[in-house]
Amino acid sequence: MALRSRTDALYAGVQSVIDEEMRRHHDHLAAVSSDLPVLADELHRLLSSGKRLRPAFCYWGWRAAGGEEAYDDAVVRAGTALEFLHAAALLHDDVMDRSDSRRGQQTTHRAFAATHAQSGWAGSADLFGESAAIILGDLCLGWADELLARCGAPPEATSRAQRVYQQMRTEVMCGQYLDIHAQAVGRDAPAETILRSAHTVLVYKSAKYSVQAPLLLGAALADAPSPLVEAYTRFGLATGEAFQLRDDVLGVFGDPSVTGKPAGDDLREGKQTMLVGYTLADGTTAQREDMRRLIGKPDLSGGEVDTLRAAITDSGALDRVESRIAALRVEARSAVDQAEVAPAAREALLSLADQAINRSS
Amino acid sequence: MALRSRTDALYAGVQSVIDEEMRRHHDHLAAVSSDLPVLADELHRLLSSGKRLRPAFCYWGWRAAGGEEAYDDAVVRAGTALEFLHAAALLHDDVMDRSDSRRGQQTTHRAFAATHAQSGWAGSADLFGESAAIILGDLCLGWADELLARCGAPPEATSRAQRVYQQMRTEVMCGQYLDIHAQAVGRDAPAETILRSAHTVLVYKSAKYSVQAPLLLGAALADAPSPLVEAYTRFGLATGEAFQLRDDVLGVFGDPSVTGKPAGDDLREGKQTMLVGYTLADGTTAQREDMRRLIGKPDLSGGEVDTLRAAITDSGALDRVESRIAALRVEARSAVDQAEVAPAAREALLSLADQAINRSS
Repeated sequence: MALRSRTDALYAGVQSVIDEEMRRHHDHLAAVSSDLPVLADELHRLLSSGKRLRPAFCYWGWRAAGGEEAYDDAVVRAGTALEFLHAAALLHDDVMDRSDSRRGQQTTHRAFAATHAQSGWAGSADLFGESAAIILGDLCLGWADELLARCGAPPEATSRAQRVYQQMRTEVMCGQYLDIHAQAVGRDAPAETILRSAHTVLVYKSAKYSVQAPLLLGAALADAPSPLVEAYTRFGLATGEAFQLRDDVLGVFGDPSVTGKPAGDDLREGKQTMLVGYTLADGTTAQREDMRRLIGKPDLSGGEVDTLRAAITDSGALDRVESRIAALRVEARSAVDQAEVAPAAREALLSLADQAINRSS
Repeated sequence: MALRSRTDALYAGVQSVIDEEMRRHHDHLAAVSSDLPVLADELHRLLSSGKRLRPAFCYWGWRAAGGEEAYDDAVVRAGTALEFLHAAALLHDDVMDRSDSRRGQQTTHRAFAATHAQSGWAGSADLFGESAAIILGDLCLGWADELLARCGAPPEATSRAQRVYQQMRTEVMCGQYLDIHAQAVGRDAPAETILRSAHTVLVYKSAKYSVQAPLLLGAALADAPSPLVEAYTRFGLATGEAFQLRDDVLGVFGDPSVTGKPAGDDLREGKQTMLVGYTLADGTTAQREDMRRLIGKPDLSGGEVDTLRAAITDSGALDRVESRIAALRVEARSAVDQAEVAPAAREALLSLADQAINRSS
């Protein structure tokens, strides 16, 4: 009950930092030109949804390390910087993937393209939309950095947090490049290569970024002792990997009305996930051929999506991924069990991990 | 002579910071995956050319404000952060403009698209190239921020510099959005509207960013007194505006073998410059019609480029821009003459302004 209300307060705190920051940016933009506030409005909309997983891991990483309550607000601000970074990443990812929708809503580049088309402006509406989304992502990346720098923690704590943040920012972008690279080269690669590179992408684009780094950011703010940092490193990596494997499963088998993404979108995009790799490693000749032939086909029909789903299930790839998720949960629990943290913090970390792993959207 | 050798040392210093930073990033990327160092190599290549105008204005802004020589290296590092920011902006601008070449070389997105095509990878080569360039720009934006944060100036000086930097970063991106927005809506707008928005773009995308903010960054590092900050503000805005007007003239009339950009590229892209605005404001009916009909035509022929050049010259638009450049030079000189700075620093600032304004590339 106390945990639930603390979590609710955290989510409200994140939203109120977002509102406050976006009001400030809106005013700055409006002072430059009346054509600009539309950018702030769009970002504010985008930032106002999401699971708030990263600020939650940051907050509990800090609390579990004995962070002083006087800096509660500063830690919420630092965690909210992760939401800004994530919004920037999503804006740019959606341009790279040419995605039409995100969280059940039109993506930003599509929204700006629609404005262009409806207004009868000159030039390409698509290019205008993509450009606007690239620029908004750039703005948002800068604002993330600004929010962390001015989170209100003591200067040494902020500096420690910035070092964690900088490394994570570089590594998530590396993960993104490895992802598009794997999609480009992977289709003809041996299953073993696909599995290896899928794992690297998963670690850098997702596990470290979504769970491990937020925890370590909290640890850095609290100046956590190294055994705890090591426990977070293990717990974060295991939880983060399971989080992404769950995402991969939902990307193929999830209910579009719950995930907000069209059914089979990952298959159409040609995402080289562990599911794809295991199917190619363990499937029958027919299953492997179906996978090679259909993965990444932009106009995949409903029937073809079903063929791929059957290949993934019948080859045993889905079971392998589910077993891996289960093993990672055990590993995460063992890491946090061995860490010296207060019972309430332990409970919060484990509950967050469960939320990340057992979800339907 | 002393000024020349100080300037040479500054340029060498900037290059050596670039080399050192890129070695570090290269190693970090290589540790993640052998597929990544290509990103660092491409950025290193990109960073190894350029006029170094921004670090020079930063350096002399600091020197003229009496900055202590003990922090010379820190100021060079802070100035080099501006080169990283600029490289990020160019990477993303080139994607938005779909430019083929930059400084006489293939743009980054084209280079990555070529690798994709030559390797026979799956999916769209263009999309892969654009995605790689977006990611590299994002990495570079982060590395700029990291370099400034760790420039080595005292913490309070660095914080002051970061505030200047953050405002500039937001405003240059605002300028970029206003630019694409003006290109989209401007083609049918009245001359007056085009001139007003061209001026806003020029101030935010260029004048503040290329000259004023670098000077103010130097001033912030040196904790310059407010009369000097005011003088820099005036000097920087006038010099920066003239710098961009010169760029606009070169974009239409420049020698491609010197500018490194195809002849008439700005006209093909449909850039809504003051030259375009003045032609529409002052030209004959025929000149105005030529401009409206041809500006932004992607496949503009050599003859059509000549028609537009004639319209710009014969309408008096070119003369108006040249007069404005001359007036801005006078304004810049007067601002720096009234500032209390050492003669050597004054000479350096005026010489840099001349370099920025009287150039052929």
